[in-house]
Amino acid sequence: MAVSERRARLALSCVVECGDPNLTELVDRQGAVVAWTQLLDGRFGAPLAQRGAAVDIDGMTCQAEKAAIRFVTPEDEEWPSTLGDLRHCPPVQRRGGIPFGLWLRGPGHLARLVERAVAIVGSRASTGYGAGVATDLAAGLAEHGVTVISGGAYGIDAAAHGGALVAGGPTLCVVANGVDLAYPPGNGRLFASLASDHLLVSELPPGAHPTRMRFLARNRLIAALSKGTVVVEAALRSGARNTATWAMECSRQLMAVPGPVHSAMSAAPHLMIRDGQATLVTSAADVLELVSDLGQHTIAMPRGASRPTDDMDGVRLAVFEAVPRRRRASVGAVAMSAGVSVPDCLAHLGALDAAGLVDGTAVGWRALVPPTRRPQLDT
Amino acid sequence: MAVSERRARLALSCVVECGDPNLTELVDRQGAVVAWTQLLDGRFGAPLAQRGAAVDIDGMTCQAEKAAIRFVTPEDEEWPSTLGDLRHCPPVQRRGGIPFGLWLRGPGHLARLVERAVAIVGSRASTGYGAGVATDLAAGLAEHGVTVISGGAYGIDAAAHGGALVAGGPTLCVVANGVDLAYPPGNGRLFASLASDHLLVSELPPGAHPTRMRFLARNRLIAALSKGTVVVEAALRSGARNTATWAMECSRQLMAVPGPVHSAMSAAPHLMIRDGQATLVTSAADVLELVSDLGQHTIAMPRGASRPTDDMDGVRLAVFEAVPRRRRASVGAVAMSAGVSVPDCLAHLGALDAAGLVDGTAVGWRALVPPTRRPQLDT
Repeated sequence: MAVSERRARLALSCVVECGDPNLTELVDRQGAVVAWTQLLDGRFGAPLAQRGAAVDIDGMTCQAEKAAIRFVTPEDEEWPSTLGDLRHCPPVQRRGGIPFGLWLRGPGHLARLVERAVAIVGSRASTGYGAGVATDLAAGLAEHGVTVISGGAYGIDAAAHGGALVAGGPTLCVVANGVDLAYPPGNGRLFASLASDHLLVSELPPGAHPTRMRFLARNRLIAALSKGTVVVEAALRSGARNTATWAMECSRQLMAVPGPVHSAMSAAPHLMIRDGQATLVTSAADVLELVSDLGQHTIAMPRGASRPTDDMDGVRLAVFEAVPRRRRASVGAVAMSAGVSVPDCLAHLGALDAAGLVDGTAVGWRALVPPTRRPQLDT
Repeated sequence: MAVSERRARLALSCVVECGDPNLTELVDRQGAVVAWTQLLDGRFGAPLAQRGAAVDIDGMTCQAEKAAIRFVTPEDEEWPSTLGDLRHCPPVQRRGGIPFGLWLRGPGHLARLVERAVAIVGSRASTGYGAGVATDLAAGLAEHGVTVISGGAYGIDAAAHGGALVAGGPTLCVVANGVDLAYPPGNGRLFASLASDHLLVSELPPGAHPTRMRFLARNRLIAALSKGTVVVEAALRSGARNTATWAMECSRQLMAVPGPVHSAMSAAPHLMIRDGQATLVTSAADVLELVSDLGQHTIAMPRGASRPTDDMDGVRLAVFEAVPRRRRASVGAVAMSAGVSVPDCLAHLGALDAAGLVDGTAVGWRALVPPTRRPQLDT
């Protein structure tokens, strides 16, 4: 029986381990029908041919439809064109390439959601600090209409989705199993919420269980679907660093959040920043600036409070510095200390008096504590 | 009366506000005798001429000798040649140039101390976190024979000296007042300890009090005397950022310590790292690598613990991943799941069994929790 391109992609996604670089490349070059035919012919080994022969495409389609799960391919309007960037990335840990298709669950429109999207990733074993930062970042991004992308794990992933949900903003979860399964089960309520109001994404068919290799393959989708990836907390060995590698391979912004130097969970972010792989970010505003088009969302240059001495010329500053605070000094003493003539000194003291910075009486001059102005934002 | 170059420098240091860019440049170009003569002639204004006429060089020399304070100039063997790098730095906040001379107190030999020296600077209002990091960094550097340079303020400065003292290593304090004075008084014991066992340095004569301008001038000495400056904690407006500017002007390494993103005291370090001015450092080892000659003190590439799966080829990894942990599976099921033939699967399972990674019985195969090897250092 001849299969359509779409059915061949669906069949491949059910049979071939996700992110198999040989098959993804063949499909990209010659199409899924050719690849599927070769697979059934045993070109990729007898076990795959056996699995191919056993797959029930119609049954799978029917089962997915019942569970309100849709399968999208590059032919569909909902397909995100950014995944094409995976075409030229060399495999990382033996996984790579453009997925055959994506299984989606939820009302979100994938292509539109990823027009402005940032991945927030990190350790399952996050600290309270890291979870708090992930929540704040996600909420801040979601408030600006930026889609938060993450996995479905405990720790940073769950905190990121939680922050986006609290802000009522768009969020999207890419899982390493079928979108009908809740893994880990403890995040069941989160998955239910994402499925009913947002979007769950996977290249694995319904019913598929996660493996370490599937997590590694999944990470390339998180990176490629986003304009940039923020690593909030991660140990030196962690999946988040694999996602970071993909972000770099796909020429996406890689960002990392600093933390206490003693925290093992900040070791990977610190290393990536130190080595110039990632840009340090501390807030949603920092992230927005980096992932937005030039001139959009530029952040205010952070400044401390300004002081009345900021714009003083050298001589006036010298006079001001020469006026004591805890006692009074004569004009002569101030002039001597500042290294200016008495008439010049008097002129400067007059100006400083008018500015409320010194106070002169018959017994001499005293400096007043200068008022601090509130920080002003350069906009 | 004709003065020697040395006496002229001493007189200038008593009369001219430290770091006056006009006079430091003139002295550097034409010598201190010429500058002193011009100053007495009123070329720099009547007030400076008056102050010059009033200075008692012999009295000052005698007073310093009694207090075991010495005055060193570029003629002296103890003079640090690195200060020459200030020659080409443009003034920062109206201060700059090579000091006329330095007033020293303590047994330390200045030139030798700064051969390998790192400045640790930061806020007076440091947090417990910042003070702890400064102490650790200083102790770690001092243990490696690196001189710790800082000011005499509360907070990061005091913590840095404290760490160096605990490690029994070299430390050096550059103050913005006479080296005979304890400012702030609360650090009196620290100054006494530095004066008796280490070194206090100032370009201001004995008896001089600190001013804001003198702190700004002092900061250029801290930066220029060091191979690099580490900013541990600092608010957006702080003297530490002025020192950081000097470190960059003098082409020294600028380093900064990350911290929690919510901490105002980490705002300046984060900004400097984000903008690429400073390199992120988390430990004395990081600092040592950056300030040492190429190939010296290279730090081990931090890695997480290695795993037995690290070097597995793709097929064996697929077999291993296909073996369940919580139940047993038949060879046929594992082969199907891994996408390999049964004979191949058996061969891989045998190898995995020999490596202690799986366990096979009559009822099937089960994966064992792989042992984690300790992290190994790449040296």
